[in-house]
Amino acid sequence: MQRYFVPPAQMEEYSVVLEGDDARHLAAVMRAKPGDCFIACDGNGQDVLAQIITVDKDRVRAEITERLIAQAEMAWKVTVAQSLAKGDKLEIVIQKGTEAGAIAFQPFLSQRTVVQYDERKEAKRLERWRKIAKEAAEQSHRSVIPGIKTVSTWKSLLKQFTEYDLILFCYEEEGRVGSGLRALLSDYRTQFASINPRVLVVIGPEGGFTVQEAEAAVLAGAKLIGLGRRILRTETAALYALACLAYESGELGGI
Amino acid sequence: MQRYFVPPAQMEEYSVVLEGDDARHLAAVMRAKPGDCFIACDGNGQDVLAQIITVDKDRVRAEITERLIAQAEMAWKVTVAQSLAKGDKLEIVIQKGTEAGAIAFQPFLSQRTVVQYDERKEAKRLERWRKIAKEAAEQSHRSVIPGIKTVSTWKSLLKQFTEYDLILFCYEEEGRVGSGLRALLSDYRTQFASINPRVLVVIGPEGGFTVQEAEAAVLAGAKLIGLGRRILRTETAALYALACLAYESGELGGI
Repeated sequence: MQRYFVPPAQMEEYSVVLEGDDARHLAAVMRAKPGDCFIACDGNGQDVLAQIITVDKDRVRAEITERLIAQAEMAWKVTVAQSLAKGDKLEIVIQKGTEAGAIAFQPFLSQRTVVQYDERKEAKRLERWRKIAKEAAEQSHRSVIPGIKTVSTWKSLLKQFTEYDLILFCYEEEGRVGSGLRALLSDYRTQFASINPRVLVVIGPEGGFTVQEAEAAVLAGAKLIGLGRRILRTETAALYALACLAYESGELGGI
Repeated sequence: MQRYFVPPAQMEEYSVVLEGDDARHLAAVMRAKPGDCFIACDGNGQDVLAQIITVDKDRVRAEITERLIAQAEMAWKVTVAQSLAKGDKLEIVIQKGTEAGAIAFQPFLSQRTVVQYDERKEAKRLERWRKIAKEAAEQSHRSVIPGIKTVSTWKSLLKQFTEYDLILFCYEEEGRVGSGLRALLSDYRTQFASINPRVLVVIGPEGGFTVQEAEAAVLAGAKLIGLGRRILRTETAALYALACLAYESGELGGI
Protein backbone atom coordinates (compact mmCIF):
# COMPACT_ATOMS: atom_id res chain seq x y z
CA MET A 1 0.00 0.00 0.00
CA GLN A 2 1.18 3.55 -0.79
CA ARG A 3 2.84 5.38 2.11
CA TYR A 4 3.25 9.11 2.65
CA PHE A 5 4.96 11.15 5.35
CA VAL A 6 2.65 13.95 6.42
CA PRO A 7 3.60 17.12 8.37
CA PRO A 8 2.13 17.08 11.91
CA ALA A 9 -0.21 19.98 11.10
CA GLN A 10 -1.95 17.88 8.43
CA MET A 11 -2.68 14.93 10.70
CA GLU A 12 -5.44 15.28 13.29
CA GLU A 13 -6.99 12.71 15.56
CA TYR A 14 -9.49 11.36 13.03
CA SER A 15 -8.43 12.86 9.73
CA VAL A 16 -5.42 13.42 7.52
CA VAL A 17 -4.79 15.70 4.54
CA LEU A 18 -2.25 15.22 1.75
CA GLU A 19 -1.13 18.32 -0.16
CA GLY A 20 1.25 19.28 -2.96
CA ASP A 21 3.39 16.56 -4.56
CA ASP A 22 2.00 13.78 -2.41
CA ALA A 23 -1.61 14.67 -3.26
CA ARG A 24 -0.78 14.90 -6.96
CA HIS A 25 1.06 11.58 -6.79
CA LEU A 26 -1.89 9.85 -5.15
CA ALA A 27 -4.46 11.47 -7.44
CA ALA A 28 -2.70 11.52 -10.81
CA VAL A 29 -0.15 8.70 -10.64
CA MET A 30 -1.90 6.21 -8.39
CA ARG A 31 -5.36 7.28 -9.69
CA ALA A 32 -6.81 6.99 -6.20
CA LYS A 33 -10.57 7.45 -5.70
CA PRO A 34 -12.73 8.08 -2.62
CA GLY A 35 -12.91 4.85 -0.63
CA ASP A 36 -9.30 3.84 -1.48
CA CYS A 37 -6.79 3.56 1.36
CA PHE A 38 -3.21 4.63 1.98
CA ILE A 39 -0.81 4.75 4.92
CA ALA A 40 0.11 8.11 6.41
CA CYS A 41 3.11 8.47 8.72
CA ASP A 42 3.80 11.46 10.95
CA GLY A 43 7.55 10.82 10.68
CA ASN A 44 7.85 10.37 14.43
CA GLY A 45 6.79 6.75 14.63
CA GLN A 46 2.99 6.98 14.26
CA ASP A 47 1.55 5.29 11.16
CA VAL A 48 -2.17 5.35 10.39
CA LEU A 49 -4.38 3.67 7.84
CA ALA A 50 -6.44 6.33 6.03
CA GLN A 51 -9.48 6.00 3.75
CA ILE A 52 -9.96 8.70 1.14
CA ILE A 53 -13.02 10.96 1.38
CA THR A 54 -12.30 13.54 -1.36
CA VAL A 55 -9.69 13.81 -4.10
CA ASP A 56 -8.81 17.21 -5.55
CA LYS A 57 -5.82 17.97 -7.74
CA ASP A 58 -3.68 19.40 -4.93
CA ARG A 59 -5.43 18.04 -1.90
CA VAL A 60 -6.60 14.64 -0.71
CA ARG A 61 -8.76 14.41 2.42
CA ALA A 62 -9.00 11.10 4.26
CA GLU A 63 -10.42 9.61 7.42
CA ILE A 64 -8.16 7.69 9.82
CA THR A 65 -9.56 4.19 10.16
CA GLU A 66 -6.80 2.54 12.15
CA ARG A 67 -3.67 3.41 14.14
CA LEU A 68 -0.91 1.03 13.10
CA ILE A 69 1.90 -0.28 15.26
CA ALA A 70 5.19 0.80 13.70
CA GLN A 71 7.26 -2.28 12.98
CA ALA A 72 10.12 -1.06 10.86
CA GLU A 73 12.16 0.68 13.55
CA MET A 74 15.27 -0.67 15.28
CA ALA A 75 15.14 -1.38 19.02
CA TRP A 76 18.49 0.40 19.32
CA LYS A 77 18.30 4.07 18.35
CA VAL A 78 21.39 4.55 16.20
CA THR A 79 22.76 7.95 15.18
CA VAL A 80 25.47 7.93 12.52
CA ALA A 81 28.16 10.60 12.97
CA GLN A 82 29.84 10.76 9.58
CA SER A 83 32.87 12.86 8.75
CA LEU A 84 32.29 14.92 5.60
CA ALA A 85 33.57 13.07 2.55
CA LYS A 86 34.14 13.79 -1.12
CA GLY A 87 31.51 13.84 -3.86
CA ASP A 88 28.09 12.42 -3.12
CA LYS A 89 29.28 10.03 -0.42
CA LEU A 90 27.21 11.66 2.32
CA GLU A 91 24.15 11.08 0.16
CA ILE A 92 24.97 7.37 -0.08
CA VAL A 93 25.50 7.19 3.68
CA ILE A 94 22.15 8.87 4.34
CA GLN A 95 20.21 6.82 1.81
CA LYS A 96 21.65 3.43 2.82
CA GLY A 97 21.77 4.31 6.52
CA THR A 98 18.07 5.24 6.44
CA GLU A 99 17.21 1.93 4.79
CA ALA A 100 19.24 0.17 7.45
CA GLY A 101 17.39 1.92 10.29
CA ALA A 102 19.47 4.87 11.54
CA ILE A 103 17.45 7.39 13.56
CA ALA A 104 19.64 10.44 12.82
CA PHE A 105 22.77 11.62 11.01
CA GLN A 106 25.38 14.02 12.35
CA PRO A 107 27.87 15.19 9.70
CA PHE A 108 31.09 16.55 11.20
CA LEU A 109 34.55 17.88 10.36
CA SER A 110 37.67 16.00 11.41
CA GLN A 111 41.41 16.50 10.97
CA ARG A 112 41.68 14.58 7.71
CA THR A 113 38.45 15.90 6.20
CA VAL A 114 39.54 16.98 2.74
CA VAL A 115 36.35 18.55 1.39
CA GLN A 116 35.97 22.28 1.59
CA TYR A 117 33.26 23.12 4.07
CA ASP A 118 31.19 25.97 2.68
CA GLU A 119 28.83 27.47 5.22
CA ARG A 120 26.92 29.43 2.58
CA LYS A 121 25.98 26.24 0.76
CA GLU A 122 25.04 24.56 4.04
CA ALA A 123 21.29 25.26 3.95
CA LYS A 124 20.89 23.97 0.42
CA ARG A 125 22.87 20.85 1.14
CA LEU A 126 20.95 20.11 4.34
CA GLU A 127 17.72 20.45 2.40
CA ARG A 128 18.96 17.93 -0.16
CA TRP A 129 20.12 15.47 2.53
CA ARG A 130 16.73 15.74 4.27
CA LYS A 131 14.93 15.02 1.01
CA ILE A 132 17.07 11.91 0.50
CA ALA A 133 16.30 10.73 4.06
CA LYS A 134 12.57 11.26 3.54
CA GLU A 135 12.50 9.37 0.25
CA ALA A 136 14.60 6.49 1.61
CA ALA A 137 12.36 6.32 4.70
CA GLU A 138 9.24 6.06 2.52
CA GLN A 139 10.82 3.49 0.25
CA SER A 140 12.00 1.26 3.10
CA HIS A 141 8.65 1.58 4.96
CA ARG A 142 10.11 3.41 7.94
CA SER A 143 7.83 5.19 10.41
CA VAL A 144 10.49 7.73 11.29
CA ILE A 145 12.30 10.15 8.99
CA PRO A 146 15.87 10.28 10.31
CA GLY A 147 16.91 13.76 11.34
CA ILE A 148 19.89 15.37 9.62
CA LYS A 149 21.76 17.63 12.01
CA THR A 150 23.79 20.61 10.89
CA VAL A 151 27.51 20.01 10.32
CA SER A 152 29.34 19.89 13.62
CA THR A 153 32.95 20.57 14.56
CA TRP A 154 35.02 17.76 16.07
CA LYS A 155 35.01 19.46 19.49
CA SER A 156 31.29 19.89 19.47
CA LEU A 157 30.84 16.25 18.44
CA LEU A 158 32.91 15.11 21.43
CA LYS A 159 30.64 17.13 23.73
CA GLN A 160 27.59 15.35 22.31
CA PHE A 161 28.95 11.98 23.44
CA THR A 162 27.24 12.39 26.84
CA GLU A 163 23.84 12.13 25.14
CA TYR A 164 24.42 8.47 24.22
CA ASP A 165 24.41 5.15 26.06
CA LEU A 166 27.15 3.73 23.83
CA ILE A 167 29.58 5.41 21.43
CA LEU A 168 31.23 3.16 18.84
CA PHE A 169 34.27 4.82 17.26
CA CYS A 170 35.20 3.01 14.03
CA TYR A 171 38.98 2.87 13.94
CA GLU A 172 40.80 1.07 11.16
CA GLU A 173 43.67 -0.04 13.39
CA GLU A 174 41.22 -1.95 15.58
CA GLY A 175 39.96 -3.93 12.60
CA ARG A 176 43.38 -5.43 11.95
CA VAL A 177 43.78 -6.82 15.44
CA GLY A 178 40.18 -8.04 15.68
CA SER A 179 38.73 -5.80 18.33
CA GLY A 180 35.71 -7.87 19.15
CA LEU A 181 32.73 -5.67 18.31
CA ARG A 182 30.63 -8.74 18.98
CA ALA A 183 32.10 -9.32 22.44
CA LEU A 184 31.61 -5.66 23.25
CA LEU A 185 28.01 -5.58 22.05
CA SER A 186 26.97 -8.81 23.72
CA ASP A 187 28.04 -7.31 27.04
CA TYR A 188 25.67 -4.46 26.36
CA ARG A 189 22.78 -6.55 25.06
CA THR A 190 21.54 -7.61 28.51
CA GLN A 191 21.92 -4.08 29.82
CA PHE A 192 20.07 -2.71 26.77
CA ALA A 193 17.22 -5.25 26.84
CA SER A 194 14.87 -3.11 28.92
CA ILE A 195 15.58 0.23 27.21
CA ASN A 196 15.86 1.56 23.67
CA PRO A 197 19.52 2.56 23.98
CA ARG A 198 20.90 5.55 22.14
CA VAL A 199 23.95 4.41 20.18
CA LEU A 200 26.33 6.69 18.28
CA VAL A 201 28.46 5.25 15.47
CA VAL A 202 31.36 7.57 14.58
CA ILE A 203 32.91 7.17 11.12
CA GLY A 204 36.00 8.96 9.81
CA PRO A 205 36.77 10.49 6.40
CA GLU A 206 38.59 8.80 3.49
CA GLY A 207 41.93 9.03 5.28
CA GLY A 208 40.60 7.76 8.59
CA PHE A 209 41.02 9.26 12.04
CA THR A 210 44.31 10.41 13.53
CA VAL A 211 45.73 8.80 16.68
CA GLN A 212 44.99 12.03 18.55
CA GLU A 213 41.34 11.89 17.52
CA ALA A 214 41.06 8.26 18.64
CA GLU A 215 42.59 9.15 22.01
CA ALA A 216 40.26 12.12 22.47
CA ALA A 217 37.26 9.95 21.58
CA VAL A 218 38.22 7.34 24.17
CA LEU A 219 38.70 10.04 26.81
CA ALA A 220 35.21 11.33 25.96
CA GLY A 221 33.75 7.87 26.54
CA ALA A 222 33.87 6.12 23.14
CA LYS A 223 34.77 2.47 22.54
CA LEU A 224 37.18 1.84 19.64
CA ILE A 225 35.87 -0.81 17.30
CA GLY A 226 36.92 -2.45 14.03
CA LEU A 227 34.49 -3.55 11.32
CA GLY A 228 36.17 -6.76 10.22
CA ARG A 229 39.42 -7.53 8.45
CA ARG A 230 39.00 -5.51 5.29
CA ILE A 231 39.38 -1.78 4.80
CA LEU A 232 35.88 -0.40 4.21
CA ARG A 233 35.35 2.81 2.30
CA THR A 234 34.01 5.67 4.41
CA GLU A 235 30.61 5.49 2.68
CA THR A 236 30.31 1.73 3.33
CA ALA A 237 31.02 1.69 7.06
CA ALA A 238 27.66 3.04 8.34
CA LEU A 239 25.58 0.42 6.56
CA TYR A 240 27.96 -2.34 7.65
CA ALA A 241 27.81 -1.20 11.29
CA LEU A 242 24.01 -0.84 11.22
CA ALA A 243 23.64 -4.41 9.94
CA CYS A 244 25.82 -5.64 12.82
CA LEU A 245 23.80 -3.63 15.35
CA ALA A 246 20.48 -4.92 14.00
CA TYR A 247 21.89 -8.45 14.10
CA GLU A 248 23.09 -8.08 17.68
CA SER A 249 19.95 -6.35 18.96
CA GLY A 250 17.83 -9.32 17.92
CA GLU A 251 16.11 -7.91 14.87
CA LEU A 252 17.13 -10.96 12.84
CA GLY A 253 15.85 -13.36 15.48
CA GLY A 254 17.82 -16.00 17.30
CA ILE A 255 18.15 -14.17 20.63
CA MET B 1 52.13 0.03 1.74
CA GLN B 2 51.13 0.00 -1.93
CA ARG B 3 49.43 -3.22 -3.10
CA TYR B 4 49.13 -4.62 -6.63
CA PHE B 5 47.42 -7.67 -8.05
CA VAL B 6 49.80 -9.44 -10.42
CA PRO B 7 48.90 -12.06 -13.08
CA PRO B 8 50.26 -15.52 -12.14
CA ALA B 9 52.76 -15.46 -15.04
CA GLN B 10 54.49 -12.41 -13.54
CA MET B 11 55.03 -13.95 -10.12
CA GLU B 12 57.71 -16.61 -9.72
CA GLU B 13 59.09 -18.24 -6.63
CA TYR B 14 61.62 -15.55 -5.81
CA SER B 15 60.73 -12.64 -8.08
CA VAL B 16 57.82 -10.56 -9.28
CA VAL B 17 57.39 -8.20 -12.22
CA LEU B 18 54.92 -5.30 -12.53
CA GLU B 19 53.99 -4.16 -16.03
CA GLY B 20 51.77 -1.59 -17.74
CA ASP B 21 49.55 0.64 -15.56
CA ASP B 22 50.77 -0.84 -12.29
CA ALA B 23 54.44 -0.30 -13.19
CA ARG B 24 53.74 3.27 -14.32
CA HIS B 25 51.79 3.93 -11.13
CA LEU B 26 54.60 2.66 -8.93
CA ALA B 27 57.32 4.45 -10.94
CA ALA B 28 55.67 7.76 -11.84
CA VAL B 29 53.01 8.31 -9.19
CA MET B 30 54.60 6.65 -6.16
CA ARG B 31 58.12 7.60 -7.35
CA ALA B 32 59.44 4.23 -6.18
CA LYS B 33 63.19 3.55 -6.35
CA PRO B 34 65.28 0.37 -6.13
CA GLY B 35 65.23 -0.80 -2.51
CA ASP B 36 61.62 0.35 -1.91
CA CYS B 37 59.02 -2.29 -1.08
CA PHE B 38 55.46 -3.06 -2.14
CA ILE B 39 52.97 -5.89 -1.68
CA ALA B 40 52.12 -8.12 -4.64
CA CYS B 41 49.05 -10.38 -4.57
CA ASP B 42 48.40 -13.22 -6.98
CA GLY B 43 44.62 -12.72 -6.57
CA ASN B 44 44.18 -16.24 -5.27
CA GLY B 45 45.11 -15.63 -1.68
CA GLN B 46 48.92 -15.38 -1.83
CA ASP B 47 50.40 -12.02 -0.84
CA VAL B 48 54.15 -11.36 -0.91
CA LEU B 49 56.38 -8.55 0.21
CA ALA B 50 58.60 -7.48 -2.69
CA GLN B 51 61.71 -5.27 -2.77
CA ILE B 52 62.39 -3.35 -5.98
CA ILE B 53 65.54 -4.20 -7.99
CA THR B 54 65.03 -2.14 -11.16
CA VAL B 55 62.51 0.53 -12.17
CA ASP B 56 61.81 1.15 -15.85
CA LYS B 57 58.93 3.17 -17.25
CA ASP B 58 56.75 0.17 -18.07
CA ARG B 59 58.36 -2.51 -15.97
CA VAL B 60 59.34 -2.89 -12.34
CA ARG B 61 61.38 -5.93 -11.27
CA ALA B 62 61.43 -6.96 -7.63
CA GLU B 63 62.66 -9.69 -5.37
CA ILE B 64 60.25 -11.52 -3.05
CA THR B 65 61.50 -11.06 0.49
CA GLU B 66 58.60 -12.52 2.45
CA ARG B 67 55.46 -14.60 1.90
CA LEU B 68 52.63 -12.97 3.86
CA ILE B 69 49.70 -14.69 5.50
CA ALA B 70 46.50 -13.35 3.95
CA GLN B 71 44.35 -11.87 6.68
CA ALA B 72 41.62 -10.03 4.88
CA GLU B 73 39.52 -12.99 3.75
CA MET B 74 36.31 -14.23 5.35
CA ALA B 75 36.26 -17.70 6.94
CA TRP B 76 32.95 -18.32 5.15
CA LYS B 77 33.31 -18.27 1.35
CA VAL B 78 30.33 -16.21 0.25
CA THR B 79 29.10 -16.00 -3.34
CA VAL B 80 26.49 -13.33 -4.08
CA ALA B 81 23.87 -14.32 -6.67
CA GLN B 82 22.34 -11.01 -7.71
CA SER B 83 19.41 -10.63 -10.07
CA LEU B 84 20.18 -8.07 -12.79
CA ALA B 85 18.95 -4.63 -11.78
CA LYS B 86 18.55 -1.23 -13.38
CA GLY B 87 21.29 1.34 -13.96
CA ASP B 88 24.62 0.85 -12.28
CA LYS B 89 23.26 -1.16 -9.37
CA LEU B 90 25.27 -4.28 -10.21
CA GLU B 91 28.40 -2.13 -10.03
CA ILE B 92 27.47 -0.98 -6.53
CA VAL B 93 26.79 -4.57 -5.48
CA ILE B 94 30.17 -5.72 -6.82
CA GLN B 95 32.13 -2.83 -5.36
CA LYS B 96 30.55 -2.95 -1.89
CA GLY B 97 30.31 -6.75 -1.84
CA THR B 98 34.03 -7.00 -2.62
CA GLU B 99 34.86 -4.63 0.23
CA ALA B 100 32.66 -6.73 2.49
CA GLY B 101 34.47 -9.95 1.55
CA ALA B 102 32.42 -11.81 -1.10
CA ILE B 103 34.45 -14.43 -2.98
CA ALA B 104 32.39 -14.39 -6.20
CA PHE B 105 29.37 -12.83 -7.91
CA GLN B 106 26.78 -14.63 -10.02
CA PRO B 107 24.43 -12.26 -11.88
CA PHE B 108 21.20 -13.94 -12.98
CA LEU B 109 17.83 -13.34 -14.61
CA SER B 110 14.61 -13.81 -12.67
CA GLN B 111 10.90 -13.39 -13.41
CA ARG B 112 10.70 -9.76 -12.34
CA THR B 113 14.04 -8.70 -13.85
CA VAL B 114 13.12 -5.56 -15.77
CA VAL B 115 16.40 -4.73 -17.49
CA GLN B 116 16.90 -5.85 -21.04
CA TYR B 117 19.54 -8.54 -21.15
CA ASP B 118 21.74 -7.95 -24.16
CA GLU B 119 24.05 -10.85 -24.92
CA ARG B 120 26.14 -8.81 -27.36
CA LYS B 121 27.04 -6.32 -24.66
CA GLU B 122 27.80 -9.10 -22.21
CA ALA B 123 31.57 -9.29 -22.76
CA LYS B 124 32.05 -5.56 -22.35
CA ARG B 125 29.94 -5.47 -19.21
CA LEU B 126 31.72 -8.44 -17.66
CA GLU B 127 35.04 -6.74 -18.34
CA ARG B 128 33.82 -3.61 -16.55
CA TRP B 129 32.49 -5.60 -13.56
CA ARG B 130 35.81 -7.46 -13.27
CA LYS B 131 37.71 -4.17 -13.27
CA ILE B 132 35.48 -2.87 -10.46
CA ALA B 133 36.08 -6.06 -8.45
CA LYS B 134 39.86 -5.79 -8.92
CA GLU B 135 39.97 -2.14 -7.87
CA ALA B 136 37.73 -2.71 -4.85
CA ALA B 137 39.84 -5.73 -3.85
CA GLU B 138 43.03 -3.64 -3.98
CA GLN B 139 41.45 -0.79 -2.11
CA SER B 140 40.09 -2.98 0.69
CA HIS B 141 43.38 -4.95 0.96
CA ARG B 142 41.87 -8.25 -0.15
CA SER B 143 44.13 -11.12 -1.21
CA VAL B 144 41.53 -12.51 -3.58
CA ILE B 145 39.88 -10.82 -6.55
CA PRO B 146 36.27 -12.04 -6.49
CA GLY B 147 35.29 -13.85 -9.67
CA ILE B 148 32.42 -12.46 -11.76
CA LYS B 149 30.52 -15.26 -13.47
CA THR B 150 28.64 -14.84 -16.71
CA VAL B 151 24.93 -14.03 -16.40
CA SER B 152 22.96 -17.16 -15.58
CA THR B 153 19.33 -18.11 -16.15
CA TRP B 154 17.12 -18.84 -13.14
CA LYS B 155 17.04 -22.56 -13.97
CA SER B 156 20.79 -22.76 -14.25
CA LEU B 157 21.16 -20.90 -10.94
CA LEU B 158 18.94 -23.47 -9.20
CA LYS B 159 21.17 -26.25 -10.53
CA GLN B 160 24.23 -24.54 -9.02
CA PHE B 161 22.70 -24.79 -5.52
CA THR B 162 24.29 -28.24 -5.04
CA GLU B 163 27.75 -26.62 -5.07
CA TYR B 164 27.08 -24.84 -1.77
CA ASP B 165 26.93 -25.83 1.91
CA LEU B 166 24.23 -23.24 2.64
CA ILE B 167 21.94 -21.24 0.34
CA LEU B 168 20.32 -18.13 1.82
CA PHE B 169 17.41 -16.91 -0.28
CA CYS B 170 16.55 -13.30 0.66
CA TYR B 171 12.78 -13.06 0.63
CA GLU B 172 11.03 -9.87 1.63
CA GLU B 173 8.03 -11.67 3.13
CA GLU B 174 10.32 -13.42 5.62
CA GLY B 175 11.62 -10.08 6.86
CA ARG B 176 8.21 -8.99 8.03
CA VAL B 177 7.62 -12.01 10.21
CA GLY B 178 11.16 -12.08 11.59
CA SER B 179 12.57 -15.23 10.10
CA GLY B 180 15.49 -15.63 12.43
CA LEU B 181 18.58 -15.45 10.20
CA ARG B 182 20.56 -15.41 13.43
CA ALA B 183 18.91 -18.57 14.76
CA LEU B 184 19.50 -20.27 11.42
CA LEU B 185 23.14 -19.23 11.21
CA SER B 186 24.02 -20.10 14.79
CA ASP B 187 22.84 -23.64 14.07
CA TYR B 188 25.34 -23.76 11.25
CA ARG B 189 28.19 -22.09 13.08
CA THR B 190 29.26 -25.21 14.98
CA GLN B 191 28.93 -27.33 11.85
CA PHE B 192 30.97 -24.76 9.87
CA ALA B 193 33.71 -24.31 12.49
CA SER B 194 36.06 -26.90 11.00
CA ILE B 195 35.53 -26.02 7.32
CA ASN B 196 35.45 -22.90 5.17
CA PRO B 197 31.82 -23.32 4.12
CA ARG B 198 30.61 -22.21 0.72
CA VAL B 199 27.60 -19.95 1.24
CA LEU B 200 25.36 -18.59 -1.53
CA VAL B 201 23.29 -15.45 -0.89
CA VAL B 202 20.51 -15.05 -3.46
CA ILE B 203 19.08 -11.55 -3.98
CA GLY B 204 16.11 -10.62 -6.15
CA PRO B 205 15.53 -7.65 -8.49
CA GLU B 206 13.78 -4.37 -7.61
CA GLY B 207 10.36 -6.05 -7.55
CA GLY B 208 11.53 -8.99 -5.46
CA PHE B 209 11.01 -12.69 -6.11
CA THR B 210 7.70 -14.31 -7.00
CA VAL B 211 6.10 -16.93 -4.74
CA GLN B 212 6.88 -19.55 -7.39
CA GLU B 213 10.57 -18.64 -7.36
CA ALA B 214 10.68 -18.85 -3.56
CA GLU B 215 9.04 -22.28 -3.68
CA ALA B 216 11.44 -23.53 -6.35
CA ALA B 217 14.41 -22.24 -4.35
CA VAL B 218 13.26 -24.08 -1.22
CA LEU B 219 12.77 -27.28 -3.23
CA ALA B 220 16.32 -26.88 -4.54
CA GLY B 221 17.66 -26.65 -0.99
CA ALA B 222 17.62 -22.94 -0.11
CA LYS B 223 16.62 -21.44 3.25
CA LEU B 224 14.31 -18.40 3.06
CA ILE B 225 15.63 -15.52 5.12
CA GLY B 226 14.68 -11.93 5.88
CA LEU B 227 17.15 -9.11 6.42
CA GLY B 228 15.41 -7.21 9.19
CA ARG B 229 12.23 -5.20 9.39
CA ARG B 230 12.84 -2.64 6.69
CA ILE B 231 12.60 -3.05 2.94
CA LEU B 232 16.14 -2.92 1.60
CA ARG B 233 16.87 -1.87 -1.97
CA THR B 234 18.20 -4.65 -4.17
CA GLU B 235 21.66 -3.03 -4.28
CA THR B 236 21.83 -2.76 -0.47
CA ALA B 237 20.97 -6.36 0.45
CA ALA B 238 24.30 -8.03 -0.42
CA LEU B 239 26.39 -5.74 1.77
CA TYR B 240 23.88 -6.05 4.63
CA ALA B 241 23.91 -9.85 4.39
CA LEU B 242 27.72 -10.01 4.18
CA ALA B 243 28.03 -7.91 7.36
CA CYS B 244 25.69 -10.33 9.16
CA LEU B 245 27.67 -13.34 7.89
CA ALA B 246 31.02 -11.83 8.96
CA TYR B 247 29.49 -11.03 12.34
CA GLU B 248 28.16 -14.56 12.78
CA SER B 249 31.30 -16.31 11.54
CA GLY B 250 33.36 -14.65 14.26
CA GLU B 251 35.24 -12.08 12.22
CA LEU B 252 34.20 -9.35 14.66
CA GLY B 253 35.29 -11.39 17.67
CA GLY B 254 33.16 -12.45 20.59
CA ILE B 255 32.76 -16.10 19.59
